[in-house]
Amino acid sequence: MKRTELVENIKRKESFLCVGLDPDIKKIPQHLLREENPLFAFNKAIIDATAPYCVAYKPNLAFYESLGVEGWIALERTVKYLKENHPDQFIIADAKRGDIGNTSMLYARSFFEHLDVDAITVAPYMGEDSVTPFLGYEGKWVILLALTSNKGSHDFQLIEDKNGKRLFEHVITTSQKWATPDEMMYVVGATQGSMFKDIRNVAPQSFLLVPGVGAQGGSLEEVARYGMIPDCGLLVNSSRGIIYASSGEDFAEAAGKEAEKLRDQMSALLKSSHII
Amino acid sequence: MKRTELVENIKRKESFLCVGLDPDIKKIPQHLLREENPLFAFNKAIIDATAPYCVAYKPNLAFYESLGVEGWIALERTVKYLKENHPDQFIIADAKRGDIGNTSMLYARSFFEHLDVDAITVAPYMGEDSVTPFLGYEGKWVILLALTSNKGSHDFQLIEDKNGKRLFEHVITTSQKWATPDEMMYVVGATQGSMFKDIRNVAPQSFLLVPGVGAQGGSLEEVARYGMIPDCGLLVNSSRGIIYASSGEDFAEAAGKEAEKLRDQMSALLKSSHII
Repeated sequence: MKRTELVENIKRKESFLCVGLDPDIKKIPQHLLREENPLFAFNKAIIDATAPYCVAYKPNLAFYESLGVEGWIALERTVKYLKENHPDQFIIADAKRGDIGNTSMLYARSFFEHLDVDAITVAPYMGEDSVTPFLGYEGKWVILLALTSNKGSHDFQLIEDKNGKRLFEHVITTSQKWATPDEMMYVVGATQGSMFKDIRNVAPQSFLLVPGVGAQGGSLEEVARYGMIPDCGLLVNSSRGIIYASSGEDFAEAAGKEAEKLRDQMSALLKSSHII
Repeated sequence: MKRTELVENIKRKESFLCVGLDPDIKKIPQHLLREENPLFAFNKAIIDATAPYCVAYKPNLAFYESLGVEGWIALERTVKYLKENHPDQFIIADAKRGDIGNTSMLYARSFFEHLDVDAITVAPYMGEDSVTPFLGYEGKWVILLALTSNKGSHDFQLIEDKNGKRLFEHVITTSQKWATPDEMMYVVGATQGSMFKDIRNVAPQSFLLVPGVGAQGGSLEEVARYGMIPDCGLLVNSSRGIIYASSGEDFAEAAGKEAEKLRDQMSALLKSSHII
């Protein structure tokens, strides 16, 4: 999906919400375990209930891989279901891959040709040749980890060089030599609201994928205040806060309501920024 | 597998060779495509031919994932075959994973409980809580990316802080607060032979997994000179140089011969270091 199309969807739906499809077999409503593929059944119901309120879905691969072959089948069916029934959704494989060149190329093939998602998250540690094989696919995106929202993000991402430039800033400035803002986004954690100012200093035009709103404690208002740009430039993800809003038979309805709430907040923020 | 057992195997087999099981469907001998699962058939033949000369196998997950469900089946069958027929082999899932805590926990379950390999490679960018969920499994190992052998490794891994300490050195010193040398190893690329001295300054007791000997251009003698410690402390990986030694029907025999050559070199190095 091209940037213009993503931005059109954001304006039309008045939402920059991404729903994290992280189904844990131990947490999904128990009545779904009777289904042939419980993870897919869960995802399908969540998708149908939340699709009017979001513009993107982000399955985290760990939740599928941890089930082996059955998990991969659930992932493939989920992506196929989205593409056939909700073709306006931007699909992000949250895989955090990154390997030497010829290996990254295999991952690129796997995610962009075989699975055919719109974007994949990539870890930057191994540098240029671990990232560039994912580029050059028409309408496909790399979403590079920059500043993550977990506690351990401080261990290395904030290390300063002799000029006070932090590692995550190196990652953002260096990687912009490899790709344009129309093919690369950055993961920026929402628990560090004021950091968005620093991020916009080095990435004024890039879309940011923001995890950590909700369960991980970030504030949507702060993210919008510091991170929003004229064509929005934000995708804010919520996983647990939506998909586990209820553990009963009404789980999908409850998920829809949570997504709607976030959409309403996002709509107000888009309006106050005169984007819509 | 515990460290003492790994070291016993190295001494008994006079080898610290790890064979990379990176089967590319486009490169394996064409007559194997008639097999029910060509990747597994290839791996099985390679394993039977090389097992006398190595102590470890390292399947790189990308080669399996890129084939979707069929690839996962090949991986699971390969690991099962190794455990049943060559139980003295140390099995490394080269996955380069790393995610927030609860997600890394799922990966740990997937690789250590479901697939039941001995070790997994982990990317350090997200810090402590992305790594520690892989620890605490009896006899299982984390192999953390420190200094990789690819060109892009220079982009971030060599960035110096104000005291001249490089990122890969931060990764090694910080991560030693999380785990002992009996449960954590480091990936250190062999194309940078002299760097092994710097690595041993910060990781005097750790095992190092060394890719890049052979196809990527590293020298075995240099690695041993600077990297070897009293219980060896090295696993040197070769993938393409062994598994694609021949593309004909004699591919397994040719792979065995290449592995034997490396074993002979390693045997001499272990003897000259008085380890055996």
